[in-house]
Amino acid sequence: MLVVQKFGGTSMGGCVRIQAVAQRIIESKKIFEDMVVVVSAMGDSTDEFLDLAHHFSNKPNRRELDRLLSSGESIASALLAIALESLGQKACSLSGREAGIVTDAHYTRAQILQIDPTKIKDLLAQNFVVVVAGFQGVSANGEITTLGRGGSDLSAVALAGALRAHLCEIYTDVDGIYTTDPRLVPEARKIDEISYDEMLELASMGAKVLFNRSVELAKKYNIPLITRNSFSHNEGTRITSEEQILEKPIVSGIALDKNQARVNIIDACDYPGIAGEIFGLLAEANLNIDMIVQTIGKNGKTNINFTLPEEDLEVCQQVLKNVRDIGSVECDRQVAKVSVVGVGMRSHSGIASAAFKALARENINILMISTSEIKISVVVDVGLAELALKTLHAAFKLEL
Amino acid sequence: MLVVQKFGGTSMGGCVRIQAVAQRIIESKKIFEDMVVVVSAMGDSTDEFLDLAHHFSNKPNRRELDRLLSSGESIASALLAIALESLGQKACSLSGREAGIVTDAHYTRAQILQIDPTKIKDLLAQNFVVVVAGFQGVSANGEITTLGRGGSDLSAVALAGALRAHLCEIYTDVDGIYTTDPRLVPEARKIDEISYDEMLELASMGAKVLFNRSVELAKKYNIPLITRNSFSHNEGTRITSEEQILEKPIVSGIALDKNQARVNIIDACDYPGIAGEIFGLLAEANLNIDMIVQTIGKNGKTNINFTLPEEDLEVCQQVLKNVRDIGSVECDRQVAKVSVVGVGMRSHSGIASAAFKALARENINILMISTSEIKISVVVDVGLAELALKTLHAAFKLEL
Repeated sequence: MLVVQKFGGTSMGGCVRIQAVAQRIIESKKIFEDMVVVVSAMGDSTDEFLDLAHHFSNKPNRRELDRLLSSGESIASALLAIALESLGQKACSLSGREAGIVTDAHYTRAQILQIDPTKIKDLLAQNFVVVVAGFQGVSANGEITTLGRGGSDLSAVALAGALRAHLCEIYTDVDGIYTTDPRLVPEARKIDEISYDEMLELASMGAKVLFNRSVELAKKYNIPLITRNSFSHNEGTRITSEEQILEKPIVSGIALDKNQARVNIIDACDYPGIAGEIFGLLAEANLNIDMIVQTIGKNGKTNINFTLPEEDLEVCQQVLKNVRDIGSVECDRQVAKVSVVGVGMRSHSGIASAAFKALARENINILMISTSEIKISVVVDVGLAELALKTLHAAFKLEL
Repeated sequence: MLVVQKFGGTSMGGCVRIQAVAQRIIESKKIFEDMVVVVSAMGDSTDEFLDLAHHFSNKPNRRELDRLLSSGESIASALLAIALESLGQKACSLSGREAGIVTDAHYTRAQILQIDPTKIKDLLAQNFVVVVAGFQGVSANGEITTLGRGGSDLSAVALAGALRAHLCEIYTDVDGIYTTDPRLVPEARKIDEISYDEMLELASMGAKVLFNRSVELAKKYNIPLITRNSFSHNEGTRITSEEQILEKPIVSGIALDKNQARVNIIDACDYPGIAGEIFGLLAEANLNIDMIVQTIGKNGKTNINFTLPEEDLEVCQQVLKNVRDIGSVECDRQVAKVSVVGVGMRSHSGIASAAFKALARENINILMISTSEIKISVVVDVGLAELALKTLHAAFKLEL
């Protein structure tokens, strides 16, 4: 069996922790024959490199920044290999380049184009534990690139896909994915199994654990992803395809995203193509629009509501100034999005109305609603967001 | 004009210093059109990496150690390129691999086999300042190697040779080469010009400034080497071929090496090949024997004296135990070597006797003598070594 394990910065924070990771890998090696380990930079070292670079410039040269940042993972991979070797386990560290991870040429946010796992396979055949520096790759013309936030997870999942691994384990400092944020709802329960799609919908909640790019890639390759805690031996959360999940709960989790702003376009001229025009311009400005709701107004006018990440609001306002015929624009930063996620919704009716009723009982006013096959999202006043979260978590009995 | 500049760890110690180095490079770029800059790791970072590695093992895996250690220079090169770019100077950092530095496969002490400067030349043609990570290369089978102590100097000189540079400037935190160690002899004077051969003979003195491997390589390529201070604009010391030096002093400098031990082999059987046998075995054990003196004893016996670095003494004693017919072996750690160096000795007689007389006047007993064309070395009691140094420095009027 081939497994890819990924250890994050906290797990690699200092020699004592790296030693513990090495011991854990050696335990795993007894179970899984072939082991590829992907590592992040130690602790906060990536932030320290960024600080160094920003000493010289607010916009440091991106080619050089990638070379600088990728050093953190190179250091961590060599140290872990040293730790493994000193425990008597053959180990070999590889850079992204050596691991065959080819990306496009977009420094600081490169996309993986292909992986040539020849070298890794050779080393596995010689019984090495292969330690790959995460977060980094190499462009077609041989330049070092980095993969952006969550890049090491992405390295791990992409390698698992290219190697047809049986499993990809992501080690962090939390036990797994929870039904909701346990800091806000102490009753939150760790989820044992969840589908890729649910995980994607819970993204805003799970962002601290897993980035969407990694989940999407795992789904594409159909590789079971397990997130677990490197500081305990607790079972983590298994993220897999829906068919693999035997017991499918109606609702799997509740997500909260406070980092939202709402834009209301009031009394826009309602001609065919107005929405296309507006959202086309916003897309050109590279803005990630989230929920979109359009309602019919009076006198050939229409109201268009949407949400987007709060930090994008200013750019959005600039873009909208240049659109004709859109009436007035109102913005609201004091909103949050609460989402009920579960594949069971497909076959169970009444989930939406149960959610709305539960919120109504607490006098929480719903500002926007948007639904998908496996998700119901509502936008509420940010001051009521945590109450909404707790209410919905209890309404669907997720603590049980 | 093409110049290679090398900045050491102290010069690169922190962002403020790197900024100063960047400014200095931009000044130089106005004078020399083409600039290749070789950098060491920042400050003490190499030692910090070694400490990390030694946390896991006294003998960390050497392949992995080289990957770890080489990160320091990669980081420094990227930061310097960021600093240059932020000052508006096009800059591009390269790893040893990218700079075309091919070595043998001896991790932690690799030898440079060849340099392919194609990529550097391309970048120079595009007006980039090329910043090369020193100390590192790549073996024929693509593995990262490091060049051992003084490795960044070696990278600089080797690149200067491959690029047929006009000059190789080594920036450190001292003003250049002195007639002797200024901490011991305050009258010591900075040398303006010195030949490669003299520099090699002064090695033990100059070791903190330049390693022999670099001087030998500069001599081989006949590239003028200048050592100077990155914290001042003082002229440094120019190390060049003897023919290039107009004014040749008889004595250039006095070197002191306290890190010596003396071995006396007393009453060895004096048959042909005894010396060859002894020193052959010591060479096999990788011991660097320095001075060798053999004297004829009585009754077909001979005495053989030699010196070697103190840290090699124990291994040496082990080796000698296995040699038959060598009588008794005495060892003395309390010795030091003082050397008078100067190309002028070749054409001036009486330098040796002047040295011996000066030492005699101070009642300094000479334990061993060894001479070459441009050097006279004496071994004295370590307690008298500094007095010997001062005496000889004054005897040859080096303070003037």
